[in-house]
Amino acid sequence: MKLLSGTCAIGAPFPPQTRRLRLGIVGGGRISQTQAMAARLTDRWDILAGALSSDSSKAAALGAQWHLDKERCYSDYNIMAKSESERADGIDAVMITTPNHLHYDAAKAFIKAGIHVICEKPLTNHYSQAEELVSLCEEHNVIFAVCYVMSTFPMIRQARKIIKDGTLGTINQIHAEFMQDWMTSDTGADAPHVKWRLDPAQSGPTSCVGDIGTHAAHLAQFVSGLQMTDLRAEFHICGAPKPLEDTAFMMTRFDHKVPGTLMATRLAPGNRGGLRLRIFGSKGGLEWDLENCERLKLTIFGQPDQIITRGHGHGISKHIENLVRTGRGFPEGLIEAWGNLYTEFALAIGARMDNITLEEGYLSYPTIEEGAWGIQFIEAAVQSHQKDGRWTAIS
Amino acid sequence: MKLLSGTCAIGAPFPPQTRRLRLGIVGGGRISQTQAMAARLTDRWDILAGALSSDSSKAAALGAQWHLDKERCYSDYNIMAKSESERADGIDAVMITTPNHLHYDAAKAFIKAGIHVICEKPLTNHYSQAEELVSLCEEHNVIFAVCYVMSTFPMIRQARKIIKDGTLGTINQIHAEFMQDWMTSDTGADAPHVKWRLDPAQSGPTSCVGDIGTHAAHLAQFVSGLQMTDLRAEFHICGAPKPLEDTAFMMTRFDHKVPGTLMATRLAPGNRGGLRLRIFGSKGGLEWDLENCERLKLTIFGQPDQIITRGHGHGISKHIENLVRTGRGFPEGLIEAWGNLYTEFALAIGARMDNITLEEGYLSYPTIEEGAWGIQFIEAAVQSHQKDGRWTAIS
Amino acid sequence: MKLLSGTCAIGAPFPPQTRRLRLGIVGGGRISQTQAMAARLTDRWDILAGALSSDSSKAAALGAQWHLDKERCYSDYNIMAKSESERADGIDAVMITTPNHLHYDAAKAFIKAGIHVICEKPLTNHYSQAEELVSLCEEHNVIFAVCYVMSTFPMIRQARKIIKDGTLGTINQIHAEFMQDWMTSDTGADAPHVKWRLDPAQSGPTSCVGDIGTHAAHLAQFVSGLQMTDLRAEFHICGAPKPLEDTAFMMTRFDHKVPGTLMATRLAPGNRGGLRLRIFGSKGGLEWDLENCERLKLTIFGQPDQIITRGHGHGISKHIENLVRTGRGFPEGLIEAWGNLYTEFALAIGARMDNITLEEGYLSYPTIEEGAWGIQFIEAAVQSHQKDGRWTAIS
Amino acid sequence: MKLLSGTCAIGAPFPPQTRRLRLGIVGGGRISQTQAMAARLTDRWDILAGALSSDSSKAAALGAQWHLDKERCYSDYNIMAKSESERADGIDAVMITTPNHLHYDAAKAFIKAGIHVICEKPLTNHYSQAEELVSLCEEHNVIFAVCYVMSTFPMIRQARKIIKDGTLGTINQIHAEFMQDWMTSDTGADAPHVKWRLDPAQSGPTSCVGDIGTHAAHLAQFVSGLQMTDLRAEFHICGAPKPLEDTAFMMTRFDHKVPGTLMATRLAPGNRGGLRLRIFGSKGGLEWDLENCERLKLTIFGQPDQIITRGHGHGISKHIENLVRTGRGFPEGLIEAWGNLYTEFALAIGARMDNITLEEGYLSYPTIEEGAWGIQFIEAAVQSHQKDGRWTAIS
Repeated sequence: MKLLSGTCAIGAPFPPQTRRLRLGIVGGGRISQTQAMAARLTDRWDILAGALSSDSSKAAALGAQWHLDKERCYSDYNIMAKSESERADGIDAVMITTPNHLHYDAAKAFIKAGIHVICEKPLTNHYSQAEELVSLCEEHNVIFAVCYVMSTFPMIRQARKIIKDGTLGTINQIHAEFMQDWMTSDTGADAPHVKWRLDPAQSGPTSCVGDIGTHAAHLAQFVSGLQMTDLRAEFHICGAPKPLEDTAFMMTRFDHKVPGTLMATRLAPGNRGGLRLRIFGSKGGLEWDLENCERLKLTIFGQPDQIITRGHGHGISKHIENLVRTGRGFPEGLIEAWGNLYTEFALAIGARMDNITLEEGYLSYPTIEEGAWGIQFIEAAVQSHQKDGRWTAIS
Repeated sequence: MKLLSGTCAIGAPFPPQTRRLRLGIVGGGRISQTQAMAARLTDRWDILAGALSSDSSKAAALGAQWHLDKERCYSDYNIMAKSESERADGIDAVMITTPNHLHYDAAKAFIKAGIHVICEKPLTNHYSQAEELVSLCEEHNVIFAVCYVMSTFPMIRQARKIIKDGTLGTINQIHAEFMQDWMTSDTGADAPHVKWRLDPAQSGPTSCVGDIGTHAAHLAQFVSGLQMTDLRAEFHICGAPKPLEDTAFMMTRFDHKVPGTLMATRLAPGNRGGLRLRIFGSKGGLEWDLENCERLKLTIFGQPDQIITRGHGHGISKHIENLVRTGRGFPEGLIEAWGNLYTEFALAIGARMDNITLEEGYLSYPTIEEGAWGIQFIEAAVQSHQKDGRWTAIS
Repeated sequence: MKLLSGTCAIGAPFPPQTRRLRLGIVGGGRISQTQAMAARLTDRWDILAGALSSDSSKAAALGAQWHLDKERCYSDYNIMAKSESERADGIDAVMITTPNHLHYDAAKAFIKAGIHVICEKPLTNHYSQAEELVSLCEEHNVIFAVCYVMSTFPMIRQARKIIKDGTLGTINQIHAEFMQDWMTSDTGADAPHVKWRLDPAQSGPTSCVGDIGTHAAHLAQFVSGLQMTDLRAEFHICGAPKPLEDTAFMMTRFDHKVPGTLMATRLAPGNRGGLRLRIFGSKGGLEWDLENCERLKLTIFGQPDQIITRGHGHGISKHIENLVRTGRGFPEGLIEAWGNLYTEFALAIGARMDNITLEEGYLSYPTIEEGAWGIQFIEAAVQSHQKDGRWTAIS
Repeated sequence: MKLLSGTCAIGAPFPPQTRRLRLGIVGGGRISQTQAMAARLTDRWDILAGALSSDSSKAAALGAQWHLDKERCYSDYNIMAKSESERADGIDAVMITTPNHLHYDAAKAFIKAGIHVICEKPLTNHYSQAEELVSLCEEHNVIFAVCYVMSTFPMIRQARKIIKDGTLGTINQIHAEFMQDWMTSDTGADAPHVKWRLDPAQSGPTSCVGDIGTHAAHLAQFVSGLQMTDLRAEFHICGAPKPLEDTAFMMTRFDHKVPGTLMATRLAPGNRGGLRLRIFGSKGGLEWDLENCERLKLTIFGQPDQIITRGHGHGISKHIENLVRTGRGFPEGLIEAWGNLYTEFALAIGARMDNITLEEGYLSYPTIEEGAWGIQFIEAAVQSHQKDGRWTAIS
């Protein structure tokens, strides 16, 4: 039986599924819970297996909380990949939400087992690993999504469409920033979710840049349709001493030498989800802020500003309405954005299963190639920082 | 086995469940889909049965989309109530989202079958029916929640707590309004979700007042902690001619003769989820707007305004953090509010199953008594309107 | 020599003056200082005489602070009217900013002396007095402006134009409110500017309604282009006991039976200059808030919201640019609105002096007829309140 | 007779003047009109002389519009300086608002004549000229203010005080930007106020950096209390080809190596007066935006955000209330900020005339030293830009 019970065409509703896809989890921390809520919300997924801890009794206890069958609570993701791939009712896909340094190894295990993967960013801690994963996916015919979830907000999709339609004219400036404040207090540095993020062995060569800087960089490209080609970066430790940066400032350069800036910090009191994107062109500009994710400011120069609101109609494109669940003015948020990612991931898998060739632009979930680019971005930033902020190509 | 695997204490995390509760659906339209997303998101519910249409082939087709077992797709809610109550794995609770005129009869069937109920508002089209349902719930030991979902937003809970703590001093004004714009256009009046809302046989004696006015009235009471005792109302048809009002303006009176106003309209272009609450007291005031549901404005007179943001800490009370899923600045919205309702509904059922006596204030989901009051409110409004806006007691 | 050195045509710049007009002041409190700043800012006025106190030594001392010639510091406005009218360089116009109960008598003195008048609202404490002033102005050929200054904000003028152009379709709801918080604290009731406002002998039959409710009522009419014909009003004393109301709620009715609401209160902590206007029609709606006076929200139903910003172009009409001093984004405020009133008042006087017949709509300053209507509004509100909020015609 | 009729003490009201000071104008374009409105508004100044054009008939015609005596309409500022200094009723001070390249020469003429000066920024086109003016002022005992008007907004003064009080803890990031959009359109490049700003002979070595970048730089220092010591800059021409930059991005470094960023552009559609300052410290942060100049966002980490509003009390310091004219919620704007500058300039002159020694912090108007620093900033930026964005000391 086909997985998708309808056609896939831009402008038409997304097809429902004849069954829910089966999802496993490697990780089990806070971010996996958020993603799990979103996967369930879509009604396209059942969560059925997990490697929620490397300690087997802890893994079992957590599994019970997740309502997993005992036999599908693993303490080793390699065994999980093998076992699940051998079951008739094995998982179709796995979510990987471990600390960064484990992404590569865990992803490899599932790809090789032919199980589709959705993996947190940064994809890996070295670009060579990312490249290897890209090849493996091709080899094993696996769909691989990377959790640049910010690109799945409806208003971000609308922003991208507006630029693609030429409404802003020629783009000539791109500013992205992600400003948070949760590291302002020096207390709490021993909390597990803080600790690994500041440990180079787990977090990789950066902390703030890899965690939130990459979101900003991805979004800038995703919305503008331009590739970021070069950057100059300076890393800072603005608060208490730490092994890795908590703040980074960059100048950036995109295709056609379009200039931009990028900032990321976790020490900006009053900023929580301060992911902001501003793109300016010869005819107009647009601005979006995660903390007001329901609205997009669009200015056509010479006219009043416009505030486009998530919902149906009133400036929202038909295809984007597929990512809309509640009416205009009845807020959606981050979990719904995750839901959009899990919806598109499911549709990509369904299309692969059903041998459907999708139209260009039908899905826009962040791919493994985008995940790999993110590692190049991080490595260029590190290199630039080490060379006194010299211009460095991202490649 | 106990359903709740932990203790229930104010300030402590909500206990997880040893199993998901089983939920059925009577209705199947857009609002049931929103609620279903929310129920799934909580991971406290499986949706397993439904009376999604009175046409049996349509019911089966819809049931397939909901991934229900064929034998649990019903076309008659009476049969559903009976069958499910007889199954070992029958539903624990049912969601009722039909047009208003069917709430009473459907609710009665499930209460009598000992199945817990969560029902859309307005609860019934006549107060006598609401009273009967209240008695039946007592008789059959059934938990019954009414979908005043706006009272489950974390910032609304925080607002209520601030007032309970006396921060505003003596309350002396309460203003509530719910302003939408979707009926502005005269086209689309034939859409099913519009049609029944304007048909007195289905919608009951009011349209706008019962649909959104009751949200505003409920919220005003819920947050202020004061009972609305009297009102004077005028109904208007501001747009194209219609059998029922699309707009209503009221003056209201609360306990201790505290005065207020209430407005509801669907013809206010630029307002979508325009549910706004403003409460003023001798020491301070607070304001909340559904379209910016993540923020609560609190003013202590003589000090700068405060903007309290949903999240952990930073002014959010410990017990309310149980209703928080994502960090400050990573937006939540209406579906999460529904999730809070489904969480509290599950905990109430769990406590009943496990014979746990809950502390006062541990749960604050809207009860059937609140639902019944809503009908008194509607009937008082109708009566006042018919008598040229005379002051009318709500009772 | 002509006063105006150019032509008066809609769409053309306002003509400069060949000399500044000479202004006198009766009053001398805080509000006269604000108006004086505005008059000076326009460079169309010199302030040259004043009755700043009925105590002659105090009048002299204040006059020195205002840099007035000693001989033009009066302690009696009747003498001032007489003396100034006899001087070759006597004042062209007088600003009256006394407590309410003195407006009538002072205005009469200057009108009879042929001196143009700009007078605070409410115009008088009885409608019969207002009527008399209207007649006297006609008789003595005097220009008389009333200080409904809120109608001189550029964005209010733009709002009026948008409605006149039919952009909102048929108006079907008008909501106006003026919410302040300065009376929240019970202390300070002895301050002079508080005391007279709560003394019926000085303030007249109302306090809050006459002071700020009339602003809201005037603005609702001015922008909508519809006359308010009827109202039902309830007055409240929400804070400490007082001889006059501090709060009032009204339902209102405009031409063609368009319904509305009106609220005024000084006890809404967190609201300072909370004058808000919302007008809805069959095609769209608009909203304005004094605290964000630079922006006008315009919604054409079916399109994104628009935010029109004060400035040149970008949605601002040519004629309204005459009321614009600084570029878009460089804020103007209340003093500039007063400046617009003093500019239009000067132009009206200039046109009268120069025998120029102005085009309909060339000036829109609030006239004595509008001031007189304000007294009818107050009297209707008092009457309605006394009769338990019965519908009462304004006439 | 003393000019100031009262004492000068922090926390006490500013003293009135026994007479208005006499002001002359060199320039006469749009910006001089704005400043003139502000000077008049304060009632501390009479505008009595001007060199409004180098064409003598044009100078006379403009002078008439300004209501100047014929004999005080000059076409040569050197003659004006000489003549006015010789008159008994000669001007006390002069406002210089010519294109940049003339500031130096004009300022020199008036300083040498012993006339106090308020001059537009950038002060000069070469630092050596600025240094010379600093020396001349000392020599001739002249008060010299530079038009960094943004530092005179009450909320900016409050921000500065908050930081000085240590409320933010140790400052660790400073972000300033000034984003406008008026050069977006390529048409209009021939307008006089555009033309000279893009002509290196008149504008100096930069266009955007000198015009608006210096505002941002000055404000960052003024509020933070930290000196900007180094920068790296890249200039861009984002729109149509031009002889000078329309956009610049910088990384900045302040005392104690506190890092920051600075952006300035005139090509950001949707940004008009987009001067924004964000300062973060170990305990809290604050943010201000010119387009919402009445509000200051203050976050003490761990508490709700605060919004401090311009007015009296409610978080506004006593001394700053001297810069407040209308009550909270009754907006003030840029002209009032200019008014504050002209008030402080007048007080500084008065104190000099009356031989009063002012307390540290009594006045905070921008001095010639700050103006001279601005030229060092510009020169460092140019130098850095020319050397591929290398870190460059400002000195």
